[in-house]
Amino acid sequence: MPQGDAATSTAWETIKRAVGRLTRSSPPRMALLIFAAVIALFTSLLMMPWSTATGESPEFHDALFVATSAVSVTGLSPVNTAEHWSLAGQIVILTGIQVGGLGILTLASLVAASVTHHLGLRTRLVAQEGISTGKLGEVGSLIKTVVICSVVAEAVLALVLIPRLIIIEGDILRGFWHGIFYAISAFNNAGFVIHADGLAGVNHDPIVLWTLMVGVFVGSLGFPVLLLLWRYRWHIKSWSLHTKLTMEITTLFLVVGAVLYAILEWNHLDTIGTMTTGEKIQNSIFASVMMRSGGFSVVENVMEHSETMLITNALMFVGGGSASTAGGIKVTTFAVIFLAFLAEARGHEDSSAHGRTIPAQAVRVGVSVVAMGATFVLLSTLALIIITGEDLERPLFESISAFATCGLTSGLTEELPPSGLYVLSALMFAGRVGIMTFAAALTIRQSRIRYRYPEGRPIIG
Amino acid sequence: MPQGDAATSTAWETIKRAVGRLTRSSPPRMALLIFAAVIALFTSLLMMPWSTATGESPEFHDALFVATSAVSVTGLSPVNTAEHWSLAGQIVILTGIQVGGLGILTLASLVAASVTHHLGLRTRLVAQEGISTGKLGEVGSLIKTVVICSVVAEAVLALVLIPRLIIIEGDILRGFWHGIFYAISAFNNAGFVIHADGLAGVNHDPIVLWTLMVGVFVGSLGFPVLLLLWRYRWHIKSWSLHTKLTMEITTLFLVVGAVLYAILEWNHLDTIGTMTTGEKIQNSIFASVMMRSGGFSVVENVMEHSETMLITNALMFVGGGSASTAGGIKVTTFAVIFLAFLAEARGHEDSSAHGRTIPAQAVRVGVSVVAMGATFVLLSTLALIIITGEDLERPLFESISAFATCGLTSGLTEELPPSGLYVLSALMFAGRVGIMTFAAALTIRQSRIRYRYPEGRPIIG
Ligand SMILES: [K+]
Ligand SMILES: [K+]
Repeated sequence: MPQGDAATSTAWETIKRAVGRLTRSSPPRMALLIFAAVIALFTSLLMMPWSTATGESPEFHDALFVATSAVSVTGLSPVNTAEHWSLAGQIVILTGIQVGGLGILTLASLVAASVTHHLGLRTRLVAQEGISTGKLGEVGSLIKTVVICSVVAEAVLALVLIPRLIIIEGDILRGFWHGIFYAISAFNNAGFVIHADGLAGVNHDPIVLWTLMVGVFVGSLGFPVLLLLWRYRWHIKSWSLHTKLTMEITTLFLVVGAVLYAILEWNHLDTIGTMTTGEKIQNSIFASVMMRSGGFSVVENVMEHSETMLITNALMFVGGGSASTAGGIKVTTFAVIFLAFLAEARGHEDSSAHGRTIPAQAVRVGVSVVAMGATFVLLSTLALIIITGEDLERPLFESISAFATCGLTSGLTEELPPSGLYVLSALMFAGRVGIMTFAAALTIRQSRIRYRYPEGRPIIG
Repeated sequence: MPQGDAATSTAWETIKRAVGRLTRSSPPRMALLIFAAVIALFTSLLMMPWSTATGESPEFHDALFVATSAVSVTGLSPVNTAEHWSLAGQIVILTGIQVGGLGILTLASLVAASVTHHLGLRTRLVAQEGISTGKLGEVGSLIKTVVICSVVAEAVLALVLIPRLIIIEGDILRGFWHGIFYAISAFNNAGFVIHADGLAGVNHDPIVLWTLMVGVFVGSLGFPVLLLLWRYRWHIKSWSLHTKLTMEITTLFLVVGAVLYAILEWNHLDTIGTMTTGEKIQNSIFASVMMRSGGFSVVENVMEHSETMLITNALMFVGGGSASTAGGIKVTTFAVIFLAFLAEARGHEDSSAHGRTIPAQAVRVGVSVVAMGATFVLLSTLALIIITGEDLERPLFESISAFATCGLTSGLTEELPPSGLYVLSALMFAGRVGIMTFAAALTIRQSRIRYRYPEGRPIIG
């Protein structure tokens, strides 16, 4: 074995062992710390003079915000990514997106492994044992799978985007760099753009738009779903309940979002009103895909009607699939609550879907996630209204976008004073890492009290 | 026995028998029909020429809206109650409030009886049997208790208000009529006013303001709580879980609402900024009490800061106590969801409070009520934005106020075209009768499926 391979192998073993140790103690708390450390690292990198286009150190609040936005794969930014940062700075941001995306997928998949049977860890109990007794092989192979899966997906997207962007830009190096940037930004649902005028320059190019859509859509399904789709393809009967629910709700919301967007904006001259019918349809689908959590926008959201922004709020809040780079409360959380409602309305003792009972515990975890999310958004909206003196609409939109790490913007982020940027930074962190680790903590919880009180029934409603 | 008494007694028997028959079949559906019929009756009364000040028939949409608002004890109105209606019309409205309030308390208490042990119907099962086998005596005595309780409370309020209003108005008859009107409006949490300029004329009178506050507060606790407080007073150990939770959350929200209102509006010249310190405090408490569901306002809500309106939105949505004339999702629903969150965060198997386990079923009913409420509010807000072209703030405020039958207004109701009035009418009906009967249907459900599917665990969050 050559020396290089041995060194790589040893480094790999060290990483596997470190991850094993971390997951063994308190995985959620460690995840919080790791994410905070990674954000601190990327903030300090962006603070370097060579990171900006002017060669001067950026403002701390801008660097912190952009680092948080990159690592949490949100895409909100108080500064123009193309103009404010040097190429080096942009590479730092792209690295932040990649590291953040991989970190989220890995951690979330570890959690997912403990609740689904499709990652080689057969039951929830076995999964816990597997992690807590340090079966490093499985954790290691999970990380490997995540990395390979991400790199392959990003490579495919880049291979489509690069030739097209070379033609559009008329510059091989620029096309190459932009293709890689957008491929990574899309698959990780990051929504960062490095054209000074956003996607306006490519907004008539169906190849670019559809590639971004596919990248965002695939990325937003979540790792457990992707792995299962890879294994079983369209043998729907072999799909897990989680995969079925994710695919159903994602498809439903995609259609609902696109149809409503088209209906409400069809003749709106500030948005898609002046486009051809084909472009109107294409842009409606694009807008709907990006509400999931993609965060790319061809049309400025603040130009849309208030009713469109309200629908966008609702769809952003739900977000994408669990253990994906999409944020929000997640489509399966929505599904579990909707199914609980349905079961109540029908008078069924248990809520169920596709011949599977959904445990009451899952409903309670779901409710907790939604309650936490709603509280974060409420507090942030309140803070932004007080800070900016704006009325409800834009602070709410921006808060939901940050919480759901979506990255669509009403333009408010660019106008915020430092205090407002800190609020949204905290919300991106809480929305991304907080919700994920909170759900993780609840799901892989080991200690449960054994005694029960007698029942008491308050009146509901 | 004199003939009059016999006739009364027979009429009473007939009513008892009718109620028994209705509750035996499908109580929730019957409640919907009865409320719709009562609203239709009061709409047609208001359509009479003698109901208006001008002696001409009012617009149908105005009559329908005001009848719905009165019977659902909301208090929103597209027309000025003092100026648009004749004395006869105002009496119709007041009768609508009284009938609606009694109907809500009776029906809601029937439901409450099936989940608490404090109305002589010992267990949930016994309660169902009691109703379904037609034990009319208990239903009859419940109605009697509700009526007596309401009339006594309203009489006490009127006795305080009448002398004071006679002095303020300088007119015995006016003072008498206004005292009775405000007493009924306050205890039933209706929020209707019959001063042309709202409460502005009495807004410096602490006796009137505090009497309204006490009336609204007592009315918003709910009948089961009132009955239990009457029986056990402040022997808190004897209180039911429901009473404890209701008192705790109500007090908490009262304090939070008042403190936040004071902090946010203290120096706001359009609202309380020009008042004396004492008046500022008094008005902050008043505003907070009315967010529960009272709907009286001294300061126009639309003049408040956006952050105050947002907090008002949140507190209105939660509303008051179960089986009360207050609306919203109810404070115990909030408590159940908060306790579920707390239990999850602490890793407890069951959520519990005051030494009582809260059944998972209660959490699911609570979630269903919240999901239904949020959906209603979302759809109504969307419709109002489309109808009016307004941005988010006022349509959301008005929708939540209608859903929670609160009656605070951003001024939008007065500006709405007929289509908008129909939307809010539907929302008041759905928010009041829909939520109540939905929760009732869930709670007293008899048929539950017996089989269970194997468990499936989607990933949450
Ligand atoms: K994003
Ligand atoms: K009211």
